[in-house]
Amino acid sequence: MHIQILIHHMQSIMSTALSFPLSLADQIDPYLPASKDVNNKNVENRNLPWVTLTFATSLDSALSLKPGVQTILSGPVSKAMTHHLRSFHNAILVGVSTAVADDPGLNCRIDTIINADAKRHPIPIILDPHARWEINANSRVIKTAKEGKGRAPFIIVSSSVDSNVIQSRWELLRQHGGGYLHLNTDETEKFKWGDVLSILQDRLKIESVMIEGGGSIINSLLEDERSRYLVDSVIVTIAPTWLGKGGVVVSPERKGDDYVPPRLRDVKWIPMGQDVVLCGRL
Amino acid sequence: MHIQILIHHMQSIMSTALSFPLSLADQIDPYLPASKDVNNKNVENRNLPWVTLTFATSLDSALSLKPGVQTILSGPVSKAMTHHLRSFHNAILVGVSTAVADDPGLNCRIDTIINADAKRHPIPIILDPHARWEINANSRVIKTAKEGKGRAPFIIVSSSVDSNVIQSRWELLRQHGGGYLHLNTDETEKFKWGDVLSILQDRLKIESVMIEGGGSIINSLLEDERSRYLVDSVIVTIAPTWLGKGGVVVSPERKGDDYVPPRLRDVKWIPMGQDVVLCGRL
Repeated sequence: MHIQILIHHMQSIMSTALSFPLSLADQIDPYLPASKDVNNKNVENRNLPWVTLTFATSLDSALSLKPGVQTILSGPVSKAMTHHLRSFHNAILVGVSTAVADDPGLNCRIDTIINADAKRHPIPIILDPHARWEINANSRVIKTAKEGKGRAPFIIVSSSVDSNVIQSRWELLRQHGGGYLHLNTDETEKFKWGDVLSILQDRLKIESVMIEGGGSIINSLLEDERSRYLVDSVIVTIAPTWLGKGGVVVSPERKGDDYVPPRLRDVKWIPMGQDVVLCGRL
Repeated sequence: MHIQILIHHMQSIMSTALSFPLSLADQIDPYLPASKDVNNKNVENRNLPWVTLTFATSLDSALSLKPGVQTILSGPVSKAMTHHLRSFHNAILVGVSTAVADDPGLNCRIDTIINADAKRHPIPIILDPHARWEINANSRVIKTAKEGKGRAPFIIVSSSVDSNVIQSRWELLRQHGGGYLHLNTDETEKFKWGDVLSILQDRLKIESVMIEGGGSIINSLLEDERSRYLVDSVIVTIAPTWLGKGGVVVSPERKGDDYVPPRLRDVKWIPMGQDVVLCGRL
């Protein structure tokens, strides 16, 4: 290889690979699926994949300034942590709004994984009941898969979505190892979380999934007592800023008069640069 | 003194006196007015009292479940911290809604102060433009002052409030060393923060004030770039729970298109029991 090309290649790796300090990794370790401590898994869902719920907010619990806008909140260390976490999960799950708004790569850029076998990257999962996401060859997640730096996604759509309508997108996904999965929705045209986890396990052999956003996905997990039980650990990054009213916020609807605010247990707060990372269990 | 009475007296002190660990106090010290580090004071307001903005929220930035309801969020260590902070300030300021909803004591219960000369307690200041708070002999702040365990408050009302209307309340306050202060409001019938700080300094010789709430008071400080400059340090306690939609939240209105989210600098995150305490400057 010509030396200039080699340098260029090295630079391109250096510019994207992230590393996460071991001292911080040790602190987060008990909240990872790899710890495989059965006592850390909620009894109610031992037969389902491990679920880590993780996201970054401002002090006023905003994920972004407004719907459809990506807002950089956390600093470089917290970012490296996200990719560190991804390296411990079989799958990353986001909602269709996040996929459409952010065009995310959904790969793992941690130094130990980035140039490893693509199979070591987590599988991106997108919840898209109405097949709204017009994924194409220019989508970042497809380009990343093409480069061998990540996996093609599986998109979960409602059983009522006609396969013919999504045929060309399906073909594209299949070429890169991804695909569509049909799943029944409830009366509000949303998936039930138990069903989502079951299909990931049954069809894709997924044992651990990291749920990253956006707002409605996170709130739906926190709102319902049954879905809270499905979450095995929660890792939240908080940045020291107030995005102000009108942002996309994490704050569950209070369903019914007997709303019990979800509170974390086994809490650990880890200062990380300007941010803090909160680890806990629901 | 009869031994039983002595024991009872000791118990009553023990049950209310709080102590704050020295190791944590050292970490908070740089954010206190006592540090008297001129470099820590914003240049724009060196002639005004030191302002510490402090409050406790849930992860979704809620101070309470709903307006008029007091919600216990933080644990015992964070509570001791609040009283530790109070011991370093000449005054504690809250809005009328907090006074009406919580009937607060607004004294300092830290062990080194609780039985000291009442003059060492901070002066409670209530912003009450329309003289809504019907303070009376049963109000906790008055009872606390009577017992010598705190000070009577000064209540700031609009210049348009007729002194005759508040005459009996004024008399009560005066008996215990407190009073009313008249101050002009702006066109929205609110006080300007610069005017509030000036009157505290000119009339009460206050050099440091701790602003504790509630929601509208805190948001008004964060909303306006001019009032942000008046804040010298910010100390926020965050508890690992989500109170859910409908709470009283800290989240500034975005005034105008050029809204710049306030971001803290000189940030320090201090885990405290189940909570975290964020210290910073605006």
